[in-house]
Amino acid sequence: MPDLRFDETTGDWVVFAPSRNRRPHHAPALPMTTAGTSTSTSNCPFCPGNERLTPPEIYAERPNDGDWSVRVVPNKFPALRIEEADRRQSDQFGFQSMGGCGAHEVIIESPNHSVLLSDQPEGQIERVLHAAQVRYLDLMQDHRFQSVIIFKNHGERAGTSLEHPHWQLIATPVVPHQLRLKHDEAAQFFDRTGCCLYCVIADRELAARERIILQSDHFVAICPYASRSPFETWILPRRHQSSFGAAQPYELTALAQTLKIMLSSLCKVLENPDFNLAIDTAPRGDEDKEYFLWHIRIVPRLSTPAGFEMGSGMSINTVLPEEASKFLRDASTSE
Amino acid sequence: MPDLRFDETTGDWVVFAPSRNRRPHHAPALPMTTAGTSTSTSNCPFCPGNERLTPPEIYAERPNDGDWSVRVVPNKFPALRIEEADRRQSDQFGFQSMGGCGAHEVIIESPNHSVLLSDQPEGQIERVLHAAQVRYLDLMQDHRFQSVIIFKNHGERAGTSLEHPHWQLIATPVVPHQLRLKHDEAAQFFDRTGCCLYCVIADRELAARERIILQSDHFVAICPYASRSPFETWILPRRHQSSFGAAQPYELTALAQTLKIMLSSLCKVLENPDFNLAIDTAPRGDEDKEYFLWHIRIVPRLSTPAGFEMGSGMSINTVLPEEASKFLRDASTSE
Repeated sequence: MPDLRFDETTGDWVVFAPSRNRRPHHAPALPMTTAGTSTSTSNCPFCPGNERLTPPEIYAERPNDGDWSVRVVPNKFPALRIEEADRRQSDQFGFQSMGGCGAHEVIIESPNHSVLLSDQPEGQIERVLHAAQVRYLDLMQDHRFQSVIIFKNHGERAGTSLEHPHWQLIATPVVPHQLRLKHDEAAQFFDRTGCCLYCVIADRELAARERIILQSDHFVAICPYASRSPFETWILPRRHQSSFGAAQPYELTALAQTLKIMLSSLCKVLENPDFNLAIDTAPRGDEDKEYFLWHIRIVPRLSTPAGFEMGSGMSINTVLPEEASKFLRDASTSE
Repeated sequence: MPDLRFDETTGDWVVFAPSRNRRPHHAPALPMTTAGTSTSTSNCPFCPGNERLTPPEIYAERPNDGDWSVRVVPNKFPALRIEEADRRQSDQFGFQSMGGCGAHEVIIESPNHSVLLSDQPEGQIERVLHAAQVRYLDLMQDHRFQSVIIFKNHGERAGTSLEHPHWQLIATPVVPHQLRLKHDEAAQFFDRTGCCLYCVIADRELAARERIILQSDHFVAICPYASRSPFETWILPRRHQSSFGAAQPYELTALAQTLKIMLSSLCKVLENPDFNLAIDTAPRGDEDKEYFLWHIRIVPRLSTPAGFEMGSGMSINTVLPEEASKFLRDASTSE
C-alpha cells in the first residue's frame, strides 16, 4: 500500500510505492536491475483490442460515436490510490507519514502504438489536451486532492516504462513543496509590483525578442532566460489564468497548434529526443489567484544531473537559451 | 565565459557554462548528441605520467615525499572560474545575471585508473577526505565564495565524464537556494525545539533501529526515513558541527572507515551501481550555527526521475528504507 512520508529537512513529502517495482521494465525483486524491456503492439495494454489488459476505462473520446481516439485508464501500478485514506500520523519517534491517498491515471494519446505526438493531427492533440483538462477538473472535485500533476514522459531516458505514447495525471493529497515555493515567489512579486510574474516574463521575452520560439494570439513559446537545462522550453498562455482548468476551448485549440509546432521543432533539431513535459497549474484554493499563470514546461533529457546538482539544487546549463531558441525557431519556420 | 542567471520563479541561480560542451564525452557542436567515449589509461589526464595534460597542480598528498597519492587540479572545463568577477547586473528588461565567479577543482582519488574508492585502503580514503577538507577551507578564504559543493560522480548514469576515480569541488558566488531552504527548515526547528534537526534525526534513527546501516563512536549511516530514492544513504557525524571544515583528524579517520564499509556494501548489494555522493555543509557565515549538521548523502542512480518529479519536485520511491538498510546492513557485516 502506498504512503507518503514527510522529510523534515526539506519540507517535502516523498511518495512510497513499492508496488511500482512490478512495472514491466522493473525487475520483480530487490536488489533491482535497471534493464529495460520493450513492448510490441500485440501485448501492448494501450493498443486497440487489448483494452482488457488495463483497469476499467475512466473516460474516452469517441468522435462520431466510433472507436476511441483518446482513452483514460487508471495506472495499473499507481503511485497513489483513491482507495487510501489521507490520514496523517506520527510514530513514537516523531516520524510523520500519511496514507497514499490520491489518483494516478494514464491518458492514451491515440490508438496508434508508434506515432509521435508531434506527428498527430492538431485535432488529435487537442483531444488529448481536452481529456487532460476533463480529468483534471474531475479529480479536483475530490476535496482530499490538493494538486494534480499532468505530465508526459517520452523515451527511456525520460523514465517512460511503456512505449505506446501516453500522458499521466497524479493527484496528490498535499501541495508539493516546490509548487508552494514557486507560488510564494510569485505572490511576493505580485505584492511588490501588482503584476503576475509569469505574465511579466512573457511580456519581457516578447520585448527582448532573443529567446522566443514562436508566438500566436494565445500562446508564446520561449526558452526561458534562466533555463535549467539545454533546450528547456516553456509555453505560456497570453491570457492571465492561474489554472489549466480555466483554459477555454479556443485556447486548447491554439495550444494544440503551438504544441505540435514546438514538439516538431524539438524532434527535428534534436533528432527525436527523450523529453519530459509537465503542466504547472495552481493547487487547490489558488485557481483564481492573480499572481500565478499556468504553463507548460518541456525538458529534453540531454544532460545528466550529477553530484553538483544533487548537492546544491543548482543546475549547470551548457547551452544558452538564445542559441537553443534560434535552432527551434528556425526549425519551426523551415517548412 | 561562464555566468549565472537568476530564475525569479524559483529563486535559484543557474550556471551557464557553454565551454563544458567541449568535454570529452560531449559532441563539440550543437545540436548535441549524448554518445559517450571511454578513456584508456594511456591518454587519461588523471593517470601518473600524464600530469602535463591537466592544468597546473593546486595541491597534492605525497606520503614520505614520494609520488603523489592524491592530486588536486583545476577542472579543465570549469563551470565557474576564479578569474571572473562576481558583479551583478540587470539588463534593460529586468533579467538579472552575475559573473561566473567561483572555482571548480578535481580531486584525483589515487594514481590507479580503475580501483573503486571502496577497494582503496582506509588510509587512502582518509587522504582523499583530507584533501577535500584542505581545499574546502582554502576556497572559503576567498570571500567572494558563499558555498562549496564537494561531490563525487561514479559511473555514466551518475554523470561522470572521466573514468579515473575523482571527486570535485565547486565554489559558488551565491548560496544555493536549496541549501538556504534546508537551513531555514533547520533554523525553524531549532527555534521551536532548541535542538539541531539533524542530530535529532540521528538520535531518533538510533532509537528506532529500523534504518541503521552501521554506527560507530563518531558516525552513523542510515537510509533516511523519507529517502527520496532507492538506497539513498546518509552518513551523519555524532558530534554536532555545522561545517565539514570543522571535522577533526580523528573524525576523518573514522569517516574513511565508515565510507569504506558503506560503499563496499552498496557495491555488493547493487553490483557496483552508478552513484552520486555529496557533502552537505554550511554556507559562509553559518559555519558555527547550532542548527545544522554537515553530512554526506550517497544516491545510487537506480531510478529515473521523470515528469512527475519535474512537475512536482516530489519523488516516488519504490524501495522502503527499512528494506534497503537491511540489505546494506547485512552486507556490511557479512565478512
